[in-house]
Amino acid sequence: MTGRNADLPPDFGRTVLALIESKTKPVGALGLVESLALQIARATGKTAPRLETCALTIFAADHGIAAEGVSVYPQAVTRQMVLNFLHGGAAANVFADAVGASVQVVDAGVAGEPIAHPDILSRRIGAGTRNSRLEPAMTEAQLDEALRAGAALAAECGTDVLCFGEMGIGNTSAASLVAHKLLDLSLARLVGRGTGLDEKGVARKRAVLEEAAARTARRLCAARALAEYGGFEIVMMTGAMIEGARSNRPVLVDGFISSVAALAALHMEPAVERALLYAHRSAEAGHTTLLEVLGARPVLDLEMRLGEGTGALLAWPIVRAASAMLTDMASFESAGVSGPA
Amino acid sequence: MTGRNADLPPDFGRTVLALIESKTKPVGALGLVESLALQIARATGKTAPRLETCALTIFAADHGIAAEGVSVYPQAVTRQMVLNFLHGGAAANVFADAVGASVQVVDAGVAGEPIAHPDILSRRIGAGTRNSRLEPAMTEAQLDEALRAGAALAAECGTDVLCFGEMGIGNTSAASLVAHKLLDLSLARLVGRGTGLDEKGVARKRAVLEEAAARTARRLCAARALAEYGGFEIVMMTGAMIEGARSNRPVLVDGFISSVAALAALHMEPAVERALLYAHRSAEAGHTTLLEVLGARPVLDLEMRLGEGTGALLAWPIVRAASAMLTDMASFESAGVSGPA
Repeated sequence: MTGRNADLPPDFGRTVLALIESKTKPVGALGLVESLALQIARATGKTAPRLETCALTIFAADHGIAAEGVSVYPQAVTRQMVLNFLHGGAAANVFADAVGASVQVVDAGVAGEPIAHPDILSRRIGAGTRNSRLEPAMTEAQLDEALRAGAALAAECGTDVLCFGEMGIGNTSAASLVAHKLLDLSLARLVGRGTGLDEKGVARKRAVLEEAAARTARRLCAARALAEYGGFEIVMMTGAMIEGARSNRPVLVDGFISSVAALAALHMEPAVERALLYAHRSAEAGHTTLLEVLGARPVLDLEMRLGEGTGALLAWPIVRAASAMLTDMASFESAGVSGPA
Repeated sequence: MTGRNADLPPDFGRTVLALIESKTKPVGALGLVESLALQIARATGKTAPRLETCALTIFAADHGIAAEGVSVYPQAVTRQMVLNFLHGGAAANVFADAVGASVQVVDAGVAGEPIAHPDILSRRIGAGTRNSRLEPAMTEAQLDEALRAGAALAAECGTDVLCFGEMGIGNTSAASLVAHKLLDLSLARLVGRGTGLDEKGVARKRAVLEEAAARTARRLCAARALAEYGGFEIVMMTGAMIEGARSNRPVLVDGFISSVAALAALHMEPAVERALLYAHRSAEAGHTTLLEVLGARPVLDLEMRLGEGTGALLAWPIVRAASAMLTDMASFESAGVSGPA
């Protein structure tokens, strides 16, 4: 519980709610935007936080388990998509432009040679993880290095709000396994189509993951689960979320894989809870399960399942509007508007 | 059927879908954003429309039926809120700033003297409507004038996307009556709490509306329903939506009252359908009924029930992102990304 705003005054929530009630609108008429405003206040420790800037950091890495045929796309797509991000052509880029957010791209451990591009943030932990069906995905030293690199990137990112996205062929498999070991929920509830497997493909993926899961104890602590089954991009996101919360900034959680990173962050540091805003409900099957476990009501439900932080980006203007309600909206008193008769 | 893009080529939809399929993402992975992109293409008649600017026009007017005690707020609040809009202090203003939209405010017929402010667009049809429990809300001449004024305002508004909002104490009552006469659905399914009535208040409101409805035939055409029960702001919005569609621009439909204006527009000119994008599901009880009738799946569901165009504004960045997907996102071919193995 090291979040710097862990000691909010006992009447903090009441103060924020009273501020919201004073605004020129019927009580409760802004629905979930009011709940979001309260969450933002708690995340920042300020009753009227001004949120004006937002950056998306996309973490990319490869997965040894991709060799088991758990995705419809070849592993080369991870690297190709990193170049697409760097050239501004991916959904994450065009969405970021549309909502006024910046984008940075991190090579957390893409297979093959380091990616040569002036804009890449190279934080390679390795050339992809090992195959977690057979052995731990990474060493404890790699885990620590990835957590630290993620935290450092979040600390260096100077925006008011943080969005994290990911790219990595095979990473719904890695995320499902981490969640499975943290929650002791059946893989059936956590495994989905990923980028587009058919039913046979999902069955095969699940069989591979059952084998991988059988290698270790039924439940693992977050550090162990991440080292055994995680990916460098997932671990880096976990570290970044922890640092985002420590610096009292709202963290917009994207879809299934990001929510697993958030789950691991919560297990490692429960105070992170205050910073996490769940942006959207992904169409990836396991995400609804995960949101239930997390007790989260996401901002959007657009049946998206792309990752890259695309859902987080689309929620950013709504988060910004919620904070602007606190900072800029008139009160009944200041505007001279009558209350109920 | 006078929409200028009524004659889209027969393969237009297929062309847009093929363009969406070519983008660097798994097929269907952007869910409803892809559906939205197709709707935007149809609304504009372009396979890759660029949407960069959006304005909210707020129409304000008073309602004779407010004298029947159908709202918890006094009628004076309409005028007070218009001043609040003009001073930039309302939810609509702060949301517009947060999402990069401009705001203009129209006096369509607020009770009392004309509102004196340099920024008001004065299009007063009268000092509020008459009490539709007892007599028609407006004359046919007033109806025509309001439709024309709304159309002219939309024509003068030079933005790529149009949002319309409303303010008028008593206007959920007016909207419920118009929908009742157009759809022959029971008032029970269309009457809600408005700005915050309790159960007794809702029962009273419904009784007043039943009396008002009994004055005329069970079903009315759109022009008759609007003249008998509408409000100047609702009619002006109807005229503006029709003109928005004629000029091939997407119109973001806000909540319950806006959806009734859209319903009337659809009855008057069915080709309007192509232009209408439903922004959000309001918490006002009748809205879900209306969305079902309209076959609409709104972009957002944030349990808001404020009006003013606040829901439309929050959907604008998502609409912008959907159009940017069409215009700016790379294809598998252009980005050199591999397809499924």
